Amino acid sequence: MAKRIARSIVEFNAKPAIIGQAAVGGKVESEGPLGHCFAEIFEDEHPWEKAESTLQRAAIEYALISANCQASDIDLHVGGDLINQCTPTSFALREKGIPFAGIYAACASFALGLAMAAMALDSGGANTASSCGSSHFCAAEKQFRFPLELGVQPTPTAQRTATAAGAAILASGGSQAGLPRITHAIFGNVIDYGIEDPGEMGAAMAPAAWDTLRRFLEGTKTQPSDYDMILTGDLSQVGSGLFVELAKKEGGLDISAVHQDCGTMLYDINTQDVGVGGSGVGCSAAVVCAEILPKLYEGKLNRVLFIGTGALLSAISPLQGETIPAIAHGVLFEGRK
Amino acid sequence: MAKRIARSIVEFNAKPAIIGQAAVGGKVESEGPLGHCFAEIFEDEHPWEKAESTLQRAAIEYALISANCQASDIDLHVGGDLINQCTPTSFALREKGIPFAGIYAACASFALGLAMAAMALDSGGANTASSCGSSHFCAAEKQFRFPLELGVQPTPTAQRTATAAGAAILASGGSQAGLPRITHAIFGNVIDYGIEDPGEMGAAMAPAAWDTLRRFLEGTKTQPSDYDMILTGDLSQVGSGLFVELAKKEGGLDISAVHQDCGTMLYDINTQDVGVGGSGVGCSAAVVCAEILPKLYEGKLNRVLFIGTGALLSAISPLQGETIPAIAHGVLFEGRK
Repeated sequence: MAKRIARSIVEFNAKPAIIGQAAVGGKVESEGPLGHCFAEIFEDEHPWEKAESTLQRAAIEYALISANCQASDIDLHVGGDLINQCTPTSFALREKGIPFAGIYAACASFALGLAMAAMALDSGGANTASSCGSSHFCAAEKQFRFPLELGVQPTPTAQRTATAAGAAILASGGSQAGLPRITHAIFGNVIDYGIEDPGEMGAAMAPAAWDTLRRFLEGTKTQPSDYDMILTGDLSQVGSGLFVELAKKEGGLDISAVHQDCGTMLYDINTQDVGVGGSGVGCSAAVVCAEILPKLYEGKLNRVLFIGTGALLSAISPLQGETIPAIAHGVLFEGRK
Repeated sequence: MAKRIARSIVEFNAKPAIIGQAAVGGKVESEGPLGHCFAEIFEDEHPWEKAESTLQRAAIEYALISANCQASDIDLHVGGDLINQCTPTSFALREKGIPFAGIYAACASFALGLAMAAMALDSGGANTASSCGSSHFCAAEKQFRFPLELGVQPTPTAQRTATAAGAAILASGGSQAGLPRITHAIFGNVIDYGIEDPGEMGAAMAPAAWDTLRRFLEGTKTQPSDYDMILTGDLSQVGSGLFVELAKKEGGLDISAVHQDCGTMLYDINTQDVGVGGSGVGCSAAVVCAEILPKLYEGKLNRVLFIGTGALLSAISPLQGETIPAIAHGVLFEGRK
């Protein structure tokens, strides 16, 4: 049974445990610092939306193996991606036979999926649930920006949409002592600071991350120092700086010691040609599944507040004069201690 | 506290009540049999995605009035639409300040939203939740088929995407005696019978509706005659016939006496130029909110199994050689009796 501890902040008392996880990625991602943690590296296939579906299928399959589960054990899968009508997700689930709730929160979709899956478990409505998020560089560039064949120069603040997927299997926590658990979730508000340039995703998303962090700290009566890590999804270099600055200016909080961002963890941004860092649902999903959950399991991390960040634009909304709203959903992972 | 009564089938014991609802629509929809039930009729504005956002904002606003609530009372909103990256929904929520979980289940999004909102309430994680679904004829035609200005002739089995929105406000049920409740939910599987023609949406979705109905009847050990109505989202004339036939052939069940479809209720398909009936998230959302929930409240209906139906294609997936998978999510409404 969950508990509402403040508006949109939920404490899970059944403490849904993460019983398995896996990440897969593309070639560039495999050359980054987490490449050795991927279950499989994929070469691109055509069309790219199909390649993304392949990533999801593989991530789910490896996560099931890691959890020692079959697809038929899963009561509910919650997942999404960035592609129009989330076809990579739907097509991946088509072949799995797993009951499926589709979500869309842009790059925050993996955090939202984990929150929803945890809620389904904690409600008692499901015994085992799963979540997967993915993105694909070429598919995202084609859809949101320019087809790669045009060779358009990226702007200086552009991020690289990760070709990657991460999947996690969750189960009701009673009998899962020793496994990392999701103990809280927070659902985000749509926040719009009036950013107009789709090349400035980090700036568009940082205020949403701060709104969610501020509300979570207030609701749970905790401080940044209560966490081993406050992990944002894909603010990357530019957005991370703004996030830390907002926490300082608006909240009087110094979060620089505990803040990390998946967008700067997936790649080596000094040596790889990835702009100011990674983005995409697959960026945070892969970093969480390849790096964070294993460290929670090993006891190297204990309390990680994961705040997925998403920019809620479409390819046409900026052309129609809309600014870029953003959203940030969060889950608190707690380790085995 | 919810109860898992079978895989992906949930019984809600806190019996989330629907404390308010509203539907709004466009001009053609206002000329149909339910036009007099709309809270407001909207003329189109440009761009059409913005017009759809206006529909959502209005539906949520009227539903809040009907529930005697403020936006600040809502712990969690769950909603979606058909447009790329669900911008009509995100942009509507931007101005409401309501914590927001975005979903995508094509035209089944309103049923999924109600199921997720009910689960959030029943888990104890929220006290009040809301859901809204919308669609817009011109925006959908432009995105999925042809811009209207081209004057392309629709195929004989084409449906009209409804310009409409419906919103419902839900609250934990203990103190809400007399109001309609959501007592069960079922999450759908992705079902693909190999339909290739995007003009054959009804045929693509009917097998998903049947899969969900079959599993729900088995899981709850009930018969079609236990329901006043088995209401599908937007199978329309062609898909409804196939759905009834599938129930007969594969399940040995005659559901013709209790089956209704929102796609044939929203319009007068004999006199209005709407093809074989309505479709879109807004179609089922508006019919449920304008017609079904009021009748449950008045005691004219008592047990309605609402199965939202969605075709999980994008504008490009059929061009990439993909068949059209579909999904159907369901909620059981029970009246005040």
